Amino acid sequence: MLAAASDARNLSTITHDGLMTDEPATPYLAVDLDVLTRNLDRAAEHARAAGLRLRPHVKTHKSPEIARRQVEAGAVGLTVATVSEAEIFCRAGATDLFVAYPVWAAGPRGARLRALAQRVDLRVGVDSPEAARHLGLALAGTGASVLVEIDSGMRRSGVAPERAPEVARAADRAGLRVAGVFTFPGHGYAPGAAAGAAADESAALAKAAELLRGNGFDVLEVSGGSTPTLAASDPTVLTEVRPGVYVFNDAQQVELGTCGWDDVALTAVGTVVSREAGRVVLDAGGKVLGADRPVWATGAGRVPSVPEARVVLLSEHHAVVAFPEGVALPELGERLAMAPNHVCAAANLAREYVVSAGGAIVGRWPITAAGANV
Amino acid sequence: MLAAASDARNLSTITHDGLMTDEPATPYLAVDLDVLTRNLDRAAEHARAAGLRLRPHVKTHKSPEIARRQVEAGAVGLTVATVSEAEIFCRAGATDLFVAYPVWAAGPRGARLRALAQRVDLRVGVDSPEAARHLGLALAGTGASVLVEIDSGMRRSGVAPERAPEVARAADRAGLRVAGVFTFPGHGYAPGAAAGAAADESAALAKAAELLRGNGFDVLEVSGGSTPTLAASDPTVLTEVRPGVYVFNDAQQVELGTCGWDDVALTAVGTVVSREAGRVVLDAGGKVLGADRPVWATGAGRVPSVPEARVVLLSEHHAVVAFPEGVALPELGERLAMAPNHVCAAANLAREYVVSAGGAIVGRWPITAAGANV
Repeated sequence: MLAAASDARNLSTITHDGLMTDEPATPYLAVDLDVLTRNLDRAAEHARAAGLRLRPHVKTHKSPEIARRQVEAGAVGLTVATVSEAEIFCRAGATDLFVAYPVWAAGPRGARLRALAQRVDLRVGVDSPEAARHLGLALAGTGASVLVEIDSGMRRSGVAPERAPEVARAADRAGLRVAGVFTFPGHGYAPGAAAGAAADESAALAKAAELLRGNGFDVLEVSGGSTPTLAASDPTVLTEVRPGVYVFNDAQQVELGTCGWDDVALTAVGTVVSREAGRVVLDAGGKVLGADRPVWATGAGRVPSVPEARVVLLSEHHAVVAFPEGVALPELGERLAMAPNHVCAAANLAREYVVSAGGAIVGRWPITAAGANV
Repeated sequence: MLAAASDARNLSTITHDGLMTDEPATPYLAVDLDVLTRNLDRAAEHARAAGLRLRPHVKTHKSPEIARRQVEAGAVGLTVATVSEAEIFCRAGATDLFVAYPVWAAGPRGARLRALAQRVDLRVGVDSPEAARHLGLALAGTGASVLVEIDSGMRRSGVAPERAPEVARAADRAGLRVAGVFTFPGHGYAPGAAAGAAADESAALAKAAELLRGNGFDVLEVSGGSTPTLAASDPTVLTEVRPGVYVFNDAQQVELGTCGWDDVALTAVGTVVSREAGRVVLDAGGKVLGADRPVWATGAGRVPSVPEARVVLLSEHHAVVAFPEGVALPELGERLAMAPNHVCAAANLAREYVVSAGGAIVGRWPITAAGANV
């Protein structure tokens, strides 16, 4: 079981000038615990109602404390992207981990996977016979299993459904247990694309699962899902969903229509350091928000309290925020909260979350797995 | 004096299969010490020959060891972007620091600046009378000085040259020493734009300096420079240049024509984890390279050894690299070095550099100031 953060006490004190004495220096990442909790509960309830297992991707938040709350809310286990993330969440008490990545297990990484498999229920992705051979050397006999990664239209990793049996047979020959198939419908990250991507996901997974069954494999898990496609995940095909961003949401999800501003639980707080007609400069730049900017995004970030404003330029330590005429410009020294375009990138850049509830700071949670890429 | 890194010893041993036993798990940042040294020497020699002081921006590398080498090569001091960077380089032994940023010094940040001013020769940027008042409360009487930030065309922070006297007078009234003016010609970051941006820099700084002198100020420093505009910096106007990226260079600098592939000292090394006709997927994604992608960039990163290849998709843990027909595709498990688009972002994401010389790993240098945003 994941242990509770020890610092979840009330840390804030209001001083005579209205500033909380423990209010951190800007820039920092602020998490609204009420919104976070609502986001966790809503996704858990959606999965339960649809009869889908929820295995959230913790690469978004990289926080054992948030993972613990996800498990408490009903998650069957955690999804990670790297072996080092798996190691960190294992140390934090996780018991069921899926490395949803085509792990290349040659060399020391194989030994690390084997050590993990001795401590947790471990699943690993595979998308080639060559990778299966290395995984077999590392994991055969441990009880760990593999899921074959299917490309459902994103054109990243994963094989076409037709090739699933070839990869599964190689895994079987390497002594691995084949538990099923998985995909990431990342091509749902574009305006109006979520429903189509969810349909692609369902079709690709259904075909791959059918081919595996036809080749004598038990298909115990058919795993998909992303935050934009979550609502459209097909429970007649999928057994499990792996959304990540939903815990926090971000400017991208709002612009995709996945959520509203009230559902954004994480913001990057900056101070106005420079000010001119129609725009201000905040001290939270790309080294805080991340530089993600899909072609369809309306800016490099947003200001939830002023939806008309746009982050028109993001340098490493400057966010230039343009305000339309008629909207009051913040004063020099004022603090402003921005929603990053892609919250996974922002979380990975910080070391802790400053967590508040009802307007008071209630804790600081370490982002334990920040930088855990190997 | 900045102390030498204690770990600059030969760490590598070649094993029978050609892999260095200490070769790190991918992804990691590799620094070629020979190229780095050449880059340091070349910029130092350029500044010397032009009669310009070199005050390199260490936000690029965030490494005390590289800063030490910059000072050894002739840098007069260091430029930083944040007070926490200043604190880290002060602890590492730096004696002369310029926070080239319009620092908002209200509250605890003012006290931190004052503590710094008691340990190093400190300069701070200012671009408003309001900021000058807070800086005065923090720094008056310490010997620290301010430089007025001028906007030379980037439209980020800084005032128009005409407003320089107003800001300087406010600084003077606040008890601060006004040392001069500075700008960052960041609008030189576009193909063919460097010469024009250098001309804008020179014109804006000359005008601001003239106006300050006309208002009775001694203008001791006229500070500009960036890596793309370095060669065109005007020594008849400028006294000092502050390039940052030149130590490593990156895909952006190559595409801008500032340098060639042989001048790229830092790469992100990934392993091929997935492979299909015409493309491979590496395990070094946006959480390693950063997501910077200017509209004119030809990809999300480049492969110096295969200039025809392009990083066509960069997810958090995947780089999809497309190879043109006729170019041999790397094998699964092979390692490939990518040049990030923007090396400052990549360096800030890692914790250490793996440094090699003549093909052998000779050290691991901590990226001490990674994440130092406050």
